[in-house]
Amino acid sequence: MTTTLDLPGRLMAAEIAEQPEVWRRLLTDGAAAIAAASAQIVDRAPRFVLFVARGTSDHAALYAKYLVEINHGLPAGLVSPSTMTVYGARPDLRDVLYIAVSQSGGSPDLVRSVEVARQQGALTLSITNNAESPLAAAADIHVDVLAGAERSVAATKSYTAELLALYLLLERVRGGDGAEAAALPDLGARVLESDDLVHGVAQRYRFAQRLITTGRGYSYPTAREAALKLMETSYLSAQAFSGADLLHGPLATVDPQVPVLAIVPEGAGGQAMAPVLSRLAERNADVFGVGSAALLENLAGGIALPGGVPDALSPLLEILPLQQLAMHLAIARGENPDKPRGLYKVTETL
Amino acid sequence: MTTTLDLPGRLMAAEIAEQPEVWRRLLTDGAAAIAAASAQIVDRAPRFVLFVARGTSDHAALYAKYLVEINHGLPAGLVSPSTMTVYGARPDLRDVLYIAVSQSGGSPDLVRSVEVARQQGALTLSITNNAESPLAAAADIHVDVLAGAERSVAATKSYTAELLALYLLLERVRGGDGAEAAALPDLGARVLESDDLVHGVAQRYRFAQRLITTGRGYSYPTAREAALKLMETSYLSAQAFSGADLLHGPLATVDPQVPVLAIVPEGAGGQAMAPVLSRLAERNADVFGVGSAALLENLAGGIALPGGVPDALSPLLEILPLQQLAMHLAIARGENPDKPRGLYKVTETL
Repeated sequence: MTTTLDLPGRLMAAEIAEQPEVWRRLLTDGAAAIAAASAQIVDRAPRFVLFVARGTSDHAALYAKYLVEINHGLPAGLVSPSTMTVYGARPDLRDVLYIAVSQSGGSPDLVRSVEVARQQGALTLSITNNAESPLAAAADIHVDVLAGAERSVAATKSYTAELLALYLLLERVRGGDGAEAAALPDLGARVLESDDLVHGVAQRYRFAQRLITTGRGYSYPTAREAALKLMETSYLSAQAFSGADLLHGPLATVDPQVPVLAIVPEGAGGQAMAPVLSRLAERNADVFGVGSAALLENLAGGIALPGGVPDALSPLLEILPLQQLAMHLAIARGENPDKPRGLYKVTETL
Repeated sequence: MTTTLDLPGRLMAAEIAEQPEVWRRLLTDGAAAIAAASAQIVDRAPRFVLFVARGTSDHAALYAKYLVEINHGLPAGLVSPSTMTVYGARPDLRDVLYIAVSQSGGSPDLVRSVEVARQQGALTLSITNNAESPLAAAADIHVDVLAGAERSVAATKSYTAELLALYLLLERVRGGDGAEAAALPDLGARVLESDDLVHGVAQRYRFAQRLITTGRGYSYPTAREAALKLMETSYLSAQAFSGADLLHGPLATVDPQVPVLAIVPEGAGGQAMAPVLSRLAERNADVFGVGSAALLENLAGGIALPGGVPDALSPLLEILPLQQLAMHLAIARGENPDKPRGLYKVTETL
């Protein structure tokens, strides 16, 4: 007997729907901790910012790297944890802000890399969904994203909570109040109303074996995260490319049988996709867009997002229909997105 | 009439075969320029290293990022050029060594990002295969990889020449003489002798639509570059994952129908793949290895590389059979790897 408890995707659907509420909680209950963390960062005046993360959280880190490069004018990098854990590197990290991002806070290689970074002079900060985790304990500062327990193996609410925590923190560090984020919960709830539309779109990809996602700038992390969700839940071979990198080689793999999902928000990142969309059209690609209504016009289809959202906040909304797409596609293909084959919720890598 | 001039893959085969000679030239004729460049870098004593590159050259940059993190103990990052060209970021780059890597030296976004980096206080260095290129002119220092004109659209000899130039330069910066690289041309020639074996292996993937490549540490760039070659020439959906990231989600896409190419060299990077190979075995994956004979034993097949090669030099040898594989597979599938559909030799992105 199938009960509601067994319904495939039940957990993922609930956690996707919960996101506006999670953001509201972070904006209110999380504000004091974020203000305190930002004060400690300002006090140290870091000159470089390094991020360390894996999987979905790596996409949140990539998003924050764009924020740091664009808004803070600081050089930034994504650390390869293996340099410290496999090769024993002991870098000079004075003047470095070292930020680890992880839903569980449990992966030993991230914990170890934060311990090494702290010994090597960095100011270390961890952003997790578990204040009791080893990663929270290992860093000088911890920010809890307050997403609540995440039970679906495919991370959704913890991803956007990480994006928002990083945004709010980095806005505070540069003296902003993050007021522009206040509208997000309502906007997110509105975007989530496209669920029926997305359900229909998912049927379009029912028999696809491969798929390409693409975006530029702030939307490149969205393309990466959408591809990962599709891989995890629907076992599609989904590949993400920055719009520019797509033209440097992978464009050759595109033909009318390979669907493309393009993230084309209203701002500069979406505008920069225009030449990429032209080249995709030359290859007769089937391109479905998520973003600005104006940019969706010549595509095979699309989901329009609300206008007037700042470039840096658009990724929180862009990913929502793509999470829904991964869930509906998995269910259409007879899979249970809550329990992907071969995966565990906490991945331990050394 | 088909003449030898029209033979598919003729250019790519010639350029693959030329690599030992290219390395020999760089080791001798290139030594003075590399010594001069390293002296300028030592003089500035950078505290942070940023790389900017696209496509194949981005994989050479990623390799060099590992060198900097492991051997130099300096924080390093890969720049997203769009932060400067699309969003107008003007970061504080004092104490930064900014290295642009590009075969052609012609992509406008890389040139622009080097110009901005120079204005913003970085010491800028370009590594290209064209001393007359705009990128060579834009940087404070230029290193020519001396690979000779590359005519196949799929880059091969320029990739390993970039790896070697970066290795030799960074060794000089830390006071080494790069003597360990002297054996590479002979070792490379020996590895290239597996061409017949690789030709046979390629038939194995004749009908594959998707494929996964994986490696850790220094071998992760090899996995990335192998995937790009397979995408460009054979239009396979080839995806590269660091061994650790593979376990954070994409492992779910692996089943016995999705072939895996694993890079498992003798050193620490190969040893760190052992748990990844175990998890792949649990999923009954078909894993073909390139690397240490000892690590190939339990796999579906493999190509053994010569032993005794330092971790940091192994990527120059690992990629050779994978370049051959991409070429033979493309030919087996009726494609011409010298002229992939939809691509140009110089990709101009803004």
